[in-house]
Amino acid sequence: MLGLMQEQPLLISSLITFAERHHGDGQIVSRRVEGDIHRTTWAEVAGRAKQVAQALDGMQLAFSDRVATLAWNGYRHLELYFGVSGSGRVLHTINPRLHPEQIAWIVNHAEDRVLCFDATFLPIVQAVHARCPTVRRWVMLCDADRLPQDSGVPGLVAYEQWIGEQPARYEWPSFDENSASSMCYTSGTTGHPKAALYSHRSTILHAYAAALPDVMGLSARDSVLPVVPMFHVNAWGIPYSAALTGCKLVFPGAALDGKSVYELIEAEQVTYAAGVPTVWQMLLGHMGASNLRFSSLKRTVIGGSACPPAMIEAFREKYGVEVLHAWGMTEMSPLGTLCTLKNKHLALPAGEQMKIRLKQGRAIYGVDLRIVGDQGQELPWDGRTYGDLQVKGPWIVRDYYKGEDGSPLVGGDWFPTGDVATIDPDGYMQITDRSKDVIKSGGEWISSIDIENIAMAHPAVQMAACVGMPHPKWDERPLLVVVKRQGAEVSREELLSFYEGKTAKWQVPDDVVFVDAIPLGATGKMLKTRLRETLKDYRLPTA
Amino acid sequence: MLGLMQEQPLLISSLITFAERHHGDGQIVSRRVEGDIHRTTWAEVAGRAKQVAQALDGMQLAFSDRVATLAWNGYRHLELYFGVSGSGRVLHTINPRLHPEQIAWIVNHAEDRVLCFDATFLPIVQAVHARCPTVRRWVMLCDADRLPQDSGVPGLVAYEQWIGEQPARYEWPSFDENSASSMCYTSGTTGHPKAALYSHRSTILHAYAAALPDVMGLSARDSVLPVVPMFHVNAWGIPYSAALTGCKLVFPGAALDGKSVYELIEAEQVTYAAGVPTVWQMLLGHMGASNLRFSSLKRTVIGGSACPPAMIEAFREKYGVEVLHAWGMTEMSPLGTLCTLKNKHLALPAGEQMKIRLKQGRAIYGVDLRIVGDQGQELPWDGRTYGDLQVKGPWIVRDYYKGEDGSPLVGGDWFPTGDVATIDPDGYMQITDRSKDVIKSGGEWISSIDIENIAMAHPAVQMAACVGMPHPKWDERPLLVVVKRQGAEVSREELLSFYEGKTAKWQVPDDVVFVDAIPLGATGKMLKTRLRETLKDYRLPTA
Repeated sequence: MLGLMQEQPLLISSLITFAERHHGDGQIVSRRVEGDIHRTTWAEVAGRAKQVAQALDGMQLAFSDRVATLAWNGYRHLELYFGVSGSGRVLHTINPRLHPEQIAWIVNHAEDRVLCFDATFLPIVQAVHARCPTVRRWVMLCDADRLPQDSGVPGLVAYEQWIGEQPARYEWPSFDENSASSMCYTSGTTGHPKAALYSHRSTILHAYAAALPDVMGLSARDSVLPVVPMFHVNAWGIPYSAALTGCKLVFPGAALDGKSVYELIEAEQVTYAAGVPTVWQMLLGHMGASNLRFSSLKRTVIGGSACPPAMIEAFREKYGVEVLHAWGMTEMSPLGTLCTLKNKHLALPAGEQMKIRLKQGRAIYGVDLRIVGDQGQELPWDGRTYGDLQVKGPWIVRDYYKGEDGSPLVGGDWFPTGDVATIDPDGYMQITDRSKDVIKSGGEWISSIDIENIAMAHPAVQMAACVGMPHPKWDERPLLVVVKRQGAEVSREELLSFYEGKTAKWQVPDDVVFVDAIPLGATGKMLKTRLRETLKDYRLPTA
Repeated sequence: MLGLMQEQPLLISSLITFAERHHGDGQIVSRRVEGDIHRTTWAEVAGRAKQVAQALDGMQLAFSDRVATLAWNGYRHLELYFGVSGSGRVLHTINPRLHPEQIAWIVNHAEDRVLCFDATFLPIVQAVHARCPTVRRWVMLCDADRLPQDSGVPGLVAYEQWIGEQPARYEWPSFDENSASSMCYTSGTTGHPKAALYSHRSTILHAYAAALPDVMGLSARDSVLPVVPMFHVNAWGIPYSAALTGCKLVFPGAALDGKSVYELIEAEQVTYAAGVPTVWQMLLGHMGASNLRFSSLKRTVIGGSACPPAMIEAFREKYGVEVLHAWGMTEMSPLGTLCTLKNKHLALPAGEQMKIRLKQGRAIYGVDLRIVGDQGQELPWDGRTYGDLQVKGPWIVRDYYKGEDGSPLVGGDWFPTGDVATIDPDGYMQITDRSKDVIKSGGEWISSIDIENIAMAHPAVQMAACVGMPHPKWDERPLLVVVKRQGAEVSREELLSFYEGKTAKWQVPDDVVFVDAIPLGATGKMLKTRLRETLKDYRLPTA
């Protein structure tokens, strides 16, 4: 027997309709690429999103056709979020930090029909447009009078002109909530990028979950600054959760330096901000140098990579801002875990609470997680045992877009994250390594990150990488690769004895190799794949 | 094109599975009918919910068969919430305050197969069981040794024995998320009760929404006391939202007096409580008399009927507890609006904020609302214009169970609430009257409640009711019916002149009738239908 409740598909258009009706004069503040501060409201954004929809209808763009963006966080990008998905097309947010080659590949793979970009990214468009035959319309996010005369991009149009001709009246269409709404490519370290294809349903469920008190805790009283880019997994879903709660939104545009971010936080009385550690590092640096304080900021969620404990402490102790660790992936919409305490932790001393806060957190309802061993067997939640981290839930991918390699799922419906983690008895997960970096020695796993952290504590070490090397008896054994600090000296033997008492004996590396540099990726992460290639002729002395 | 996210139905079993895995040792504290305090955990509740499911399987109960409860708020009721719905049956919570005649009618209408009841309600069961042929099993929520020997109820079994024989291992079945999960009859003032039939999908969406910061704001750090009964619209969804957040739950059982509730709040360090004004009145009375203070309570949501401003102020000013007005209906799962401020209100003086707090609040995302006039035309949101309040959303009924009278929806997919309300430009709704009580005078509406409130302010008036009387020219005109205070005297003319300057002239009643008593319902509400019957021979002097 079915229930007798109203049948209403979960559609992204219902978010902007809600914000328009119930929070019409709620503020949307943007620092524009032009440098000025722009102010609009949820009602105006809704009207202009309808103009976007009309413009796409006018082009006879089909249902599910892709509309791409190369844009900073700002109100026009927000209008595209709702106008494109709301009208049934798929919003394809492209990471402008990718190489133009990759961008061209992605545009072609997605078969984008329209590409909307901020003026900042005109050089990228100029570099790729000739190789993107599927794109019928290039739209620069600017007023008509700012459009360059000689861009070299055929049929380039200014966004304000493009939508300005359209009526702001529009009836959002109704359709299957499982329809594709938006997509985001992951920049994998090997092979071509792969795209997660989100649905309206997955987006709405994620928007509810993301706003919960134990996640981002968003309310209509908040002033929210998403520093995390809208081209990166939908800015962690903040644009959707913001419409759902009717909060004030503050967009930083391209100005992510400490001074600009600080001034925006103060001017717009931001209460909540979300971003990656590097941006907060710049912010704290600026504040420390100028002896500044926050007057409104209460909480910040930090994700993307593990947050240094010192940063969590600085925010809490010095500035009175609660810092929450988050963990997720492009394949997860992206939120999987958040680190907030439980009722039983409230009586713990601050030091014990901090130990918990350093973990990536516990699952949000909707997401389930587990750790498994080599044979796929589920491992205990004892806070010590490592395993491959797997997740499942209604906002986690089951397939990649045009997934030629088949479904990534394993063991039924579990998505393998590629991370190695522990889970403690209270469900708090802590990433210990990437699966491809963990060293599998005689059936036991050694975290490359743990081994690196010990080496990094040695005063003569500037950078350290630990990689598994083939071993006839143990399958793999750890090798430590070290870049010495300028002018510092340290021997292989000194470094190996430095491990004594700091880790189990069998986890101590078998050898140390000194190098001039370790290859780094664009975001500063060590490229261990490339490092392994340079070591392909190396043999362990123990092998 | 469909998105490529995991297909996972929204099922109530996923809530208890989540709480079991991620909040296994989270506390569930209950004051039992026996009087003692009982402690259990989410993991134990999950295990026993599985035993309930096994017991129902053992009876070969079919998918969607109804399992009824007549029970207070407590851990066994919670186990039934998850065990019954999770296994695919429909939980039918019965209001024990109904007359046994009505209870028998409801049990037969729902065709309940099992009925589980607290010892308190044995007399009801004894009164009705012979007239409930569909019920195959009567289960008393107690230990085996507490079962009365001579209950007269054939085949009566103790809950602990019934589930005690079952294994706690169970694989929750998967099925269509639109399947019926639970039902609740409204006690309408006319005709037979009608049942809202909730679905798994509507329940999960409501559970997400109810936990949001702008609604109940539940987190894993909360200790939550639902005083609102689990037999009344699923205790506003708290059992589900509690599992979703992993918070601590504190159940008051049958002891709703001020002293018992206060002691439980303090002993279990309750941070959040939800209930109707009468219970809070008893609590404040007890605290005032004993000069007590709260040490943990932070917020309370008050619904069911409008909360007196003095109570909101007492909670805020004297006890530092935030009081939120909520509004909803059985047909709405039940939450529709909550009264929390917006970002732009934060700078308002306290008095202005209080004016907002007195309203029923603004829509939760998922619910849309509007007010319409006599012709079904949508009316403006100016905070002054009255109209019939209509709602829609995925947790609002589209039909009643066995709805012989057809769908209640009007104008497409709008549910008429039966309330008359205003909506202000910020979306804050305020109930001004019941649709059937509003007086329609010459195309204009007069709120009976407004007219009554003015009369109630007169020192000689103990109770006042305002009803519309037929009028040849104006269709209806207001008549004031008054019960005088003992020993007080006041004339018709004095009362009518008392309205001068307090309301528009055309809203002043045409006449006053003095009576000894006004008929009241079981919950203390005036029964205007019956009042109108006693006035059937009355004619207005102006008519």
